[in-house]
Amino acid sequence: MTQLWFAEKFTDNLALSLRVKETIHREKSPFQQIEVVETYQFGRVLLLDGVIQTTTVDEFVYHEMIAHVALSAHPAPKRVAVVGGGDGGTVREVLKHDTVELVRLIEIDEAVVRVSQKYLPEIACGLQDPRVEIAIADGIAHMAEVTDEYDVVLVDSTDPVGAAAGLFSKEFYQSVHRALKPEGIIVAQTESPWTEPGIIKRVQRALGQVFPQVYLYLCNIPAYPNGMWGFSIGSKVHDPRKPRRQNLSFSTKYYTPAIHEAAFLLPPFVQEILNTD
Amino acid sequence: MTQLWFAEKFTDNLALSLRVKETIHREKSPFQQIEVVETYQFGRVLLLDGVIQTTTVDEFVYHEMIAHVALSAHPAPKRVAVVGGGDGGTVREVLKHDTVELVRLIEIDEAVVRVSQKYLPEIACGLQDPRVEIAIADGIAHMAEVTDEYDVVLVDSTDPVGAAAGLFSKEFYQSVHRALKPEGIIVAQTESPWTEPGIIKRVQRALGQVFPQVYLYLCNIPAYPNGMWGFSIGSKVHDPRKPRRQNLSFSTKYYTPAIHEAAFLLPPFVQEILNTD
Repeated sequence: MTQLWFAEKFTDNLALSLRVKETIHREKSPFQQIEVVETYQFGRVLLLDGVIQTTTVDEFVYHEMIAHVALSAHPAPKRVAVVGGGDGGTVREVLKHDTVELVRLIEIDEAVVRVSQKYLPEIACGLQDPRVEIAIADGIAHMAEVTDEYDVVLVDSTDPVGAAAGLFSKEFYQSVHRALKPEGIIVAQTESPWTEPGIIKRVQRALGQVFPQVYLYLCNIPAYPNGMWGFSIGSKVHDPRKPRRQNLSFSTKYYTPAIHEAAFLLPPFVQEILNTD
Repeated sequence: MTQLWFAEKFTDNLALSLRVKETIHREKSPFQQIEVVETYQFGRVLLLDGVIQTTTVDEFVYHEMIAHVALSAHPAPKRVAVVGGGDGGTVREVLKHDTVELVRLIEIDEAVVRVSQKYLPEIACGLQDPRVEIAIADGIAHMAEVTDEYDVVLVDSTDPVGAAAGLFSKEFYQSVHRALKPEGIIVAQTESPWTEPGIIKRVQRALGQVFPQVYLYLCNIPAYPNGMWGFSIGSKVHDPRKPRRQNLSFSTKYYTPAIHEAAFLLPPFVQEILNTD
């Protein structure tokens, strides 16, 4: 039988290829090409403009690590915004924290939410929760309009091209700073140190002009370029490297309080990215 | 211009592809097909039977992490054996420890040593050191013949097929136990938790029948399947999770004493591999 393969070119010179069982769904929204494919290695995969966003096999790593670090470093997170993240996986993890009263998902493309709810129910399940409010809106415009609104803002964006480019700018981080309460914390996905050191440096610098405490932390995501993924975290008051609770009241597959602290320990080659001009 | 790509199928359903500038060398030894290719993403790449062994861009992660954990946990490593590892990268890292008096490389295939010395000099450089002894020999037979000979044994093998299969067996670990001095430590590369959980479980169990202290530790290697790589470590006396010196007398790009301790903190999904029957 003919084998079908999907290949994502991480760079001009590096590609990851997945053998595909079938294409489950394909549509073109006003913002992007959206596809859900069933693969042998990674289960169902959500693709936006041909770039892997999440897979049912490894999604727990990204979603746990974008959510639990900030929420565990904050003393009592009640109001949380997720910018992007229309697949719902980040929302699902945020809801595991019992202090949380509101999770507002601000996703620019309603099609991502609709497609995820239909075809990726194990990821999107949290979107049904009564504490969740879904706003189909531009996250940049939203953050420019609100003040003192959130305890935690999680920027669960695509790569910094197209509609997402503005989510990696100093101006956006200034808006988020105003949108955050006095003890607020922001996390932004910031690509891989192996392939995108320039983006990491740029985000760290821009965040550092706005927040007094800024760090990079790392995790392993097999479906993303080179397996090593970076998140940037900015905090107004609390040291985000320290989880405030040593015992979790919920189950996880990647995050633990010990992994939380370890994720901030950077190999020298990554530290060098942050140090060089 | 036509683009040349090399693809390694990590599994039947997952492949990593590298754009190739040129093939530098190709030969068939009695043991395997050996190739050195120049790639755009990872620099020079050594392939054995079509499987990526090491690349000049990311080799430091593997070689630092296979060597420095055991050597930093041992109070005074003097005599070290490297089984396999004909490219010389592990030897180069071992030599950074100034207690080391002898590094014996036991490599079954002289062609790997010769090709690496010629085409991968930045990796093979340590092989010229007067403290290094190169034995072109079967590591399994060698370990069965020596007693009380080494402080540390590093099993820098290919995947567990062909000549390397015996390096993943309880019988081999029993030989290594005898070959080690009373404070001895063994490290064996043990594949990725994402794609080879069965190998990890098997090695951990076999080592655990021979050594009183056995652990798994992890690192990120972008050119290996899924980026997350496991090493199994067995120790007769010393807790291998604790580096004995907090300041390194040499420079590294991945390993630090803090990374040493963090590498043993396993995400729950990896811990589960070790726990399940």
